[in-house]
Amino acid sequence: MGIGIDLGGTAIKGGIVDHLGVIQEERMVETQSQLGYGQVLNDLVLLIKELHRLAPTEKTVGVGIPGILSADGTTVVSCPNLFWKNKPLKQDLERALSLEVLLVNDATAACIAEAAFGSTRGRSSSVMLTLGTGVGGGVIINDQVISGAHGVASEVGHMIMEANFYDCGCGKNGCLETFASATALIRYCRKQLAEGAESDLKAAENFDARRIFEAAKAGDSLALAAVNRLARYLGWAIANISDLIDPEIFAIGGGVSSAGEFLLERIKTETKSHLTYPDYAMPEIVLATFRNESGMIGAANLCHFI
Amino acid sequence: MGIGIDLGGTAIKGGIVDHLGVIQEERMVETQSQLGYGQVLNDLVLLIKELHRLAPTEKTVGVGIPGILSADGTTVVSCPNLFWKNKPLKQDLERALSLEVLLVNDATAACIAEAAFGSTRGRSSSVMLTLGTGVGGGVIINDQVISGAHGVASEVGHMIMEANFYDCGCGKNGCLETFASATALIRYCRKQLAEGAESDLKAAENFDARRIFEAAKAGDSLALAAVNRLARYLGWAIANISDLIDPEIFAIGGGVSSAGEFLLERIKTETKSHLTYPDYAMPEIVLATFRNESGMIGAANLCHFI
Repeated sequence: MGIGIDLGGTAIKGGIVDHLGVIQEERMVETQSQLGYGQVLNDLVLLIKELHRLAPTEKTVGVGIPGILSADGTTVVSCPNLFWKNKPLKQDLERALSLEVLLVNDATAACIAEAAFGSTRGRSSSVMLTLGTGVGGGVIINDQVISGAHGVASEVGHMIMEANFYDCGCGKNGCLETFASATALIRYCRKQLAEGAESDLKAAENFDARRIFEAAKAGDSLALAAVNRLARYLGWAIANISDLIDPEIFAIGGGVSSAGEFLLERIKTETKSHLTYPDYAMPEIVLATFRNESGMIGAANLCHFI
Repeated sequence: MGIGIDLGGTAIKGGIVDHLGVIQEERMVETQSQLGYGQVLNDLVLLIKELHRLAPTEKTVGVGIPGILSADGTTVVSCPNLFWKNKPLKQDLERALSLEVLLVNDATAACIAEAAFGSTRGRSSSVMLTLGTGVGGGVIINDQVISGAHGVASEVGHMIMEANFYDCGCGKNGCLETFASATALIRYCRKQLAEGAESDLKAAENFDARRIFEAAKAGDSLALAAVNRLARYLGWAIANISDLIDPEIFAIGGGVSSAGEFLLERIKTETKSHLTYPDYAMPEIVLATFRNESGMIGAANLCHFI
C-alpha cells in the first residue's frame, strides 16, 4: 500500500495504491494555482490528510510534481505550470502532516509506475519516454531512480538533436520534444501545409495528434511523413541513450503512445538503424501500461526506488 | 592494493597498485595479437602470475580490454584491435590462475582510476570522456560503474550528433568521435586545406592533433576553427548527457586533453550554451589526472566500483 499524489496544472489527484498497483481510493481537487502557493499547499494538505485517514498505517506520501526539484528532493526549484520557483514543499507539507513526504518529478513517477506494476516490471534498468505536449522522461538504473547531482536528470525531452524550425519552450533550439511530441507533430504538419503540402489535414479547421495518426494510418502522405519524422528522432534518441547507459527496456507513454503498434514498429526500426550494436544490444521497446493514473501509482511507490 | 592489467593493442601492461593509486610494481610484454588468442591468453597468464607472486594476498585481478564485453562481464564480445570475437576470457584466465578475474572496458577503467584517485575522486557520479584516436567513455552513478543491460553502456563516442563528412569506423555517420577525437581534428583540417583554406598547417607535411593545438594557440584561423568545432560538439554532448543522467562532474582525458585549459575553457562555454539549466545545473568539467597508467590503476580498483 502507498499514498501517491499527482500534482498537475489543472487538478491535484491523490490515491491509495495497493500492492498490485491498483488504486483503491481516489480523491481529486482543482489546482487553484492562480490563488498562489499557499492555497495549493493547503489543498494538498487537506487531500493527503483525508487519504491518510483512510490508510492510517502509512508512514510516507509521494508527491509527483510537474517541474524541477532540487538535488536533495526537498524544494520545487521551478514549476512553470504552477508559477512556482524555489518552494520548500517537502518541509511545508511535513510541518502540516504526520507523514514523511517524498517529492518526485511527474515523468519519473510515471517511469516508477511502469517499473513497479507495468510494462517494465521486473527489469532493473529502464527508461520511460512520455510523449505528450512535451517529452518527459524517467531513468531507472539498478532499481533506483536517477535524479541527478543537480536534480535535473531524465530531462530527455531537452536533449538537443539538431536544428529545428521552431525554438523549444526552454529557450533552446533542437530539443527532442520539438521533434517528438504531440506539439511537434502538429507544428510540423501546419508548417508543411502553409508551404503548400497536399493533405487530408487541410480540410480540418484544427487537428490534433490523434487526427494526424488517423490520417497517417489512412495513407495521407503528409501525416505519414510527420509520423515517420517523429519516429526517426525518437529512434535516434533511444539509440543515443542506449549508447550511454544501455538500459534493458524503454517504455513509450503519454498521449501520443495511443497510436500503438503503428508508432511502436517505426520507433523500433529507427532505433535499430541508429544503434551502434543493433545485433546484440537492441533494447526492448514497449508501449507503457498506464496513462492518467501513472503519476499517482508511481508517487505511491517512490519509496521503493530511492 | 590491487592487481590491474591494461590489455592494449601493442602492449600488455600490468601493475600492483597501492591504496593511494600509486603503481608499486609494473611489468609489460608485447601484445602478440598476430599469433592469436591462445598466445595473448598465455602471455596474460604469465604476467598476472608474476604480479600475483609479488602480491600473494590479492584475491582478484582486474583486466581492462579495448573492446566490448558481454553484459555478465565474462566474455570479450568484440575487440577489433586484437581480432577477437566472443572469447570467454574470464573463464580462460580463471582456469589458469588462482584469482578471481574481473573484466572491464578500458575507457571505463580510466573512469574508475579518476574516481578512485584522480580528478573525480569523492564524487559519486561522474562521466569520463577519453579523447584519443576515437572517443571512449566511462559512466559512474552512485559509485557504481554503469556497464549496461547488454554490456555496451558508456559508448559515448558513438552517440550520433549530426551528419558528418566522413563515416565512423563503426559504420554509422555522425558519431561524436568523428567530431571530437584527434582523428576528427586532423581530418577536418585536411578537408579544409584541400578545399583551399589558408593555414600554417599547410606547410606541414603531416600534422597531428598536438600540432593543430599549437597552431590554434598561435592564432591560426583554420586550427582555431577546428578546435572550436571539437569543443562545440563536446559541449553539446556533455549537455545531452547531463540532461539524461546529470552527473556531478565530467573528466576529459586522453591525448587530446593535453591541450589543457585552452581546450577546457572552450568545452565549458559550449556546455553552458547547450544546457537546459545552465544557471543551477552546470556540471563540473575538469582535466583528467591520469594518462597512460589509468588503465592499470582503474582495473586494479574495479572491484570497488561494481
